[in-house]
Amino acid sequence: MVNIALIGYGYWGPNLARNVHQVPGAKLAVCCDADASRLAQVNLLYPLATVTTRAEDVWASPAVDAVVIATPAQSHFQLAKAALEAGKHVLVEKPLALSSEEARELIKLADARKLVLMVGHTFVYNPAVLKIKELIDQGQLGDVYYAYSTRVNLGRLHRDLNVLWSVVPHDISILLFLFGHMPLEVSARGNSYLKSGVEDVVFVSLFFPNGVMGNVHASWLDPSKVRRMTIVGSQKMVIYDDVESEGKIKVYEKGVLKVDHGEIFGEFQYKLHTGDIHIPKIDLSEPLRNECAHFVECVEKGTKPRTDGENGLQVIKVLEAAQRSLEKRGAPVEVR
Amino acid sequence: MVNIALIGYGYWGPNLARNVHQVPGAKLAVCCDADASRLAQVNLLYPLATVTTRAEDVWASPAVDAVVIATPAQSHFQLAKAALEAGKHVLVEKPLALSSEEARELIKLADARKLVLMVGHTFVYNPAVLKIKELIDQGQLGDVYYAYSTRVNLGRLHRDLNVLWSVVPHDISILLFLFGHMPLEVSARGNSYLKSGVEDVVFVSLFFPNGVMGNVHASWLDPSKVRRMTIVGSQKMVIYDDVESEGKIKVYEKGVLKVDHGEIFGEFQYKLHTGDIHIPKIDLSEPLRNECAHFVECVEKGTKPRTDGENGLQVIKVLEAAQRSLEKRGAPVEVR
Amino acid sequence: MVNIALIGYGYWGPNLARNVHQVPGAKLAVCCDADASRLAQVNLLYPLATVTTRAEDVWASPAVDAVVIATPAQSHFQLAKAALEAGKHVLVEKPLALSSEEARELIKLADARKLVLMVGHTFVYNPAVLKIKELIDQGQLGDVYYAYSTRVNLGRLHRDLNVLWSVVPHDISILLFLFGHMPLEVSARGNSYLKSGVEDVVFVSLFFPNGVMGNVHASWLDPSKVRRMTIVGSQKMVIYDDVESEGKIKVYEKGVLKVDHGEIFGEFQYKLHTGDIHIPKIDLSEPLRNECAHFVECVEKGTKPRTDGENGLQVIKVLEAAQRSLEKRGAPVEVR
Amino acid sequence: MVNIALIGYGYWGPNLARNVHQVPGAKLAVCCDADASRLAQVNLLYPLATVTTRAEDVWASPAVDAVVIATPAQSHFQLAKAALEAGKHVLVEKPLALSSEEARELIKLADARKLVLMVGHTFVYNPAVLKIKELIDQGQLGDVYYAYSTRVNLGRLHRDLNVLWSVVPHDISILLFLFGHMPLEVSARGNSYLKSGVEDVVFVSLFFPNGVMGNVHASWLDPSKVRRMTIVGSQKMVIYDDVESEGKIKVYEKGVLKVDHGEIFGEFQYKLHTGDIHIPKIDLSEPLRNECAHFVECVEKGTKPRTDGENGLQVIKVLEAAQRSLEKRGAPVEVR
Repeated sequence: MVNIALIGYGYWGPNLARNVHQVPGAKLAVCCDADASRLAQVNLLYPLATVTTRAEDVWASPAVDAVVIATPAQSHFQLAKAALEAGKHVLVEKPLALSSEEARELIKLADARKLVLMVGHTFVYNPAVLKIKELIDQGQLGDVYYAYSTRVNLGRLHRDLNVLWSVVPHDISILLFLFGHMPLEVSARGNSYLKSGVEDVVFVSLFFPNGVMGNVHASWLDPSKVRRMTIVGSQKMVIYDDVESEGKIKVYEKGVLKVDHGEIFGEFQYKLHTGDIHIPKIDLSEPLRNECAHFVECVEKGTKPRTDGENGLQVIKVLEAAQRSLEKRGAPVEVR
Repeated sequence: MVNIALIGYGYWGPNLARNVHQVPGAKLAVCCDADASRLAQVNLLYPLATVTTRAEDVWASPAVDAVVIATPAQSHFQLAKAALEAGKHVLVEKPLALSSEEARELIKLADARKLVLMVGHTFVYNPAVLKIKELIDQGQLGDVYYAYSTRVNLGRLHRDLNVLWSVVPHDISILLFLFGHMPLEVSARGNSYLKSGVEDVVFVSLFFPNGVMGNVHASWLDPSKVRRMTIVGSQKMVIYDDVESEGKIKVYEKGVLKVDHGEIFGEFQYKLHTGDIHIPKIDLSEPLRNECAHFVECVEKGTKPRTDGENGLQVIKVLEAAQRSLEKRGAPVEVR
Repeated sequence: MVNIALIGYGYWGPNLARNVHQVPGAKLAVCCDADASRLAQVNLLYPLATVTTRAEDVWASPAVDAVVIATPAQSHFQLAKAALEAGKHVLVEKPLALSSEEARELIKLADARKLVLMVGHTFVYNPAVLKIKELIDQGQLGDVYYAYSTRVNLGRLHRDLNVLWSVVPHDISILLFLFGHMPLEVSARGNSYLKSGVEDVVFVSLFFPNGVMGNVHASWLDPSKVRRMTIVGSQKMVIYDDVESEGKIKVYEKGVLKVDHGEIFGEFQYKLHTGDIHIPKIDLSEPLRNECAHFVECVEKGTKPRTDGENGLQVIKVLEAAQRSLEKRGAPVEVR
Repeated sequence: MVNIALIGYGYWGPNLARNVHQVPGAKLAVCCDADASRLAQVNLLYPLATVTTRAEDVWASPAVDAVVIATPAQSHFQLAKAALEAGKHVLVEKPLALSSEEARELIKLADARKLVLMVGHTFVYNPAVLKIKELIDQGQLGDVYYAYSTRVNLGRLHRDLNVLWSVVPHDISILLFLFGHMPLEVSARGNSYLKSGVEDVVFVSLFFPNGVMGNVHASWLDPSKVRRMTIVGSQKMVIYDDVESEGKIKVYEKGVLKVDHGEIFGEFQYKLHTGDIHIPKIDLSEPLRNECAHFVECVEKGTKPRTDGENGLQVIKVLEAAQRSLEKRGAPVEVR
């Protein structure tokens, strides 16, 4: 049995509490939040969990094996660091930290203490994303040309963390997972319409090897809720619409065939082909449940999580490059 | 009665022929195309029109008052120039030409000869776009923050003209019309997946004064046909979906109110407000019909078209900046 | 404070428990279910509620003021009767009972004891339905001609109660509420494809005074989940789609105007008119919450519920007529 | 070469003219309409066709092999009869006639003279309907349980022919084609809201052998245009949406499996199964083109059309039963 402490019971914390509570092999032992009224809610729903307003109580408790951190991003690093130093396994909500230096320090610490460090890139545990990955790996899409994602709606506004750091980690983690590569360069544009200096709209392009592109549009200022990613391959194309009720993934037998004309060197003809559309049945398991179960399994077996510290660092590196490009109004910035 | 010669009866020409034929005050007098089999089709549908494979016949004919040019973009400049030199009024399909030098030469020529020079930015004659312009000008959207447009589908591929020059002029002309300004800078990214050097996917951002942004995603490599533009204002937001059958424009009473907190300088609170959605009835007239009627009216009255040579030049300037930015993988390029 | 006992914690009971628990002025005092494992779940979520497998405990408890019955329909009558006899106020899930005799007996009993008897016709507490009622009562739709409703999906199958008695009460209660009348006649058709004698597909037409029709299609055997009602008036038309996320009600300024031609008696001309479409913002409160709050208020103030026993009886009368018509393959049956 | 005369160039005639004109092996030789202004339009579009306002000219012309009748339904019988008597092959728009007696007379006449008599049940030539037929015949749907169709929109109103006779023939012809049977009984309900005695809204149920049902809702008084049919089988289900642009047919791997419980006689368990959804690519050929080509082929080869006079009679028999049931407010009427 893995005894887990949840730190942060605000916007996302209740979802983590519910899932930790229900994952076999895990126990929601402690819940910590600075706001006592939220803890009253915890008491009501999870009467067997201990509550506290002080993180120190969590570090000090020998009954806690692992810590799940769902606080505002600004505190991720300090809390994760303290938890690791206290010998706890750690699952941090995305982003892992606010700089690659911080991320590297956490990785080093976890390695040194042989503790699990995992970041909550939930979409990597989403059955729809796993299905797309499977289609790509089977070669069904042919050569993957490019992908683009739209993740917009009205609200929820963050006061201090821009939409790049708070929303785009989702898309970056999906693109890294699907393409299996880091991008070489990033170009990003955007603006802050509500609060100066906190971008609420961004357009980000990731340049992967071999000309593959990943493009993300994220915004808090949009009339409708859209969560849609299109992946364009030479043989098939996929639309993943997370808001669609009838089927989240549509696989289109569509493409453009390049026919070598033969006679003159380099002369090609292009033939459109369009065929059936297929909506595969997707396992309806909750991604966050899968994520929590994976964390518990890694803690029990001492294995590396699919979204480990390194993966968290990769996403941060891309965010850092995007942030610099944003400040240069789109000029490409290398991902180091 | 304005006697019109149509040059180019390929992909788009038949639509122009049909509309020219039906506009009151105009007559489709001549149709010119290099391909005789297309002219046979013209003979069948418009038995009263003269056909020819030689543009020179058009220039020489005293029976021709005005010329509509719907050939591949590479020949726009030469044909428009020859037509103006022959004393004909000219309507050219977009883009007006392939460089701002060429565009300027055409403008000068038309001015000198007091001839109408118009470019076929059809969307500026689209009742849906006119309705959005009206809403913006009435101040109903409040401050316009940004707009983004998606114009994608599978095919129709161009062999030599990239998607920036062949598709994006639509969106640029809409954005210039709606915002009433030229952008200061452009950042563009994209790639050519089918034929090296001919981009089939682009993401373009236009930076307008006061932080207003216009963003365009255009592609020939997409599983579904999308023609959608979203305009985000501080008071209301509009989605214009040209493929939607029930109503092309949705006006959302949605926004984020910035409430001055008062106590501390610069501290604001943000309040989401969401209200009704309104789908105004839009006049169903065909945009191309309106465009042709406008051309005929300008010829008859000697007035400046709404999309005159200057407007054609403005769009080309933006395209040129976008093309340079594309080559610099997103680095911002000033629009001169 | 109204102390409430919930009887039946199966499919729908948990929703009632949650809402009773959260309505101000109410307390979930007791929960009764024959299945002890369900009661364990209750203990977990509502540690302060007493649980029991015996309804007799509820009747006997002086701490219980009111009873909410969410058991299979076959037991509604017996349990409601026993509850009333024990002096408890009663809210029964729909249908109130399985015959009008039973319904009349419950009404008489409640009247005699001055107890509240309410039936859970939830849609009458649904803000979208209330909005449509408002539009009709304001005369905005003009003359209401007819309405039709589709309530289909795959599953949830009932073994013994057909789709007419288990699903159609929703639509009947909505139609009675919107039209403010009882139908004169009913015609119903359907079939049982899975279990002989238990119809899983029905088409029901209600004939209201003045030619107004209400039509319902309900099924458990359908590939997609549809919950949509269309109300056609002479001036405006409304589509109410309960599955639509962007706006549940669309009001169409559409109609056919009958223009008296004048010259010849009885000669009319018909003019289609189509205008804007309006999607009013609908209060997002949960209908079941509103229903529970209404019950508590009626108990506290001793007032008649909007969906009282009489209303429950009305719906049953229509169901009885529909059942007889079903057996006669559509022949119209008078509603007594 | 089959020389064809078209009688009636009103609402639907222009579509027939265009297709007859383009079918290989056919020639639009004559066009007849009482309205001379419509014939002027014919002259413009088909300069080689002769025009006339008198049907007698058509009967008398030896240059006419076959006649296509697209006049109001009230004149179908008289015109078809005259055409057959004049020795012409005949294609009549649906319905073939307004009574089964009339239909039988036409059949007898065509048989006696060895002429082709065909009725324009277009949907039987629609690739989407053919695809569904193929799926049913291959047994992919398992046992077909029932189908229901919604064919509604605002307008186009008929003054004298109700929605049953003018719109529902489409659905009846599809259902007869798909199920390969005549229904035993019909129940129909409806009302006339605009013009007394001319129903503008009907709900029709066809009872086929083995409990299979076909249900049709047709209306001219509806806020949105719907053309959708759902076919429910024990193994798969199909939604055919003629308005959908992305794919007209969706095949759902959905059903309810009846599992014999074994122990007690007649006890079954029901298991929902839901799998993938498939959108097969459908040939985009125009149904009316296929219909016209089929007519020409039958004339040339002297073969029976798929929708011959008998088929036209079958649809009329169902309409007659439905009309009688309509007058009895839903009482089932046997189809003789």
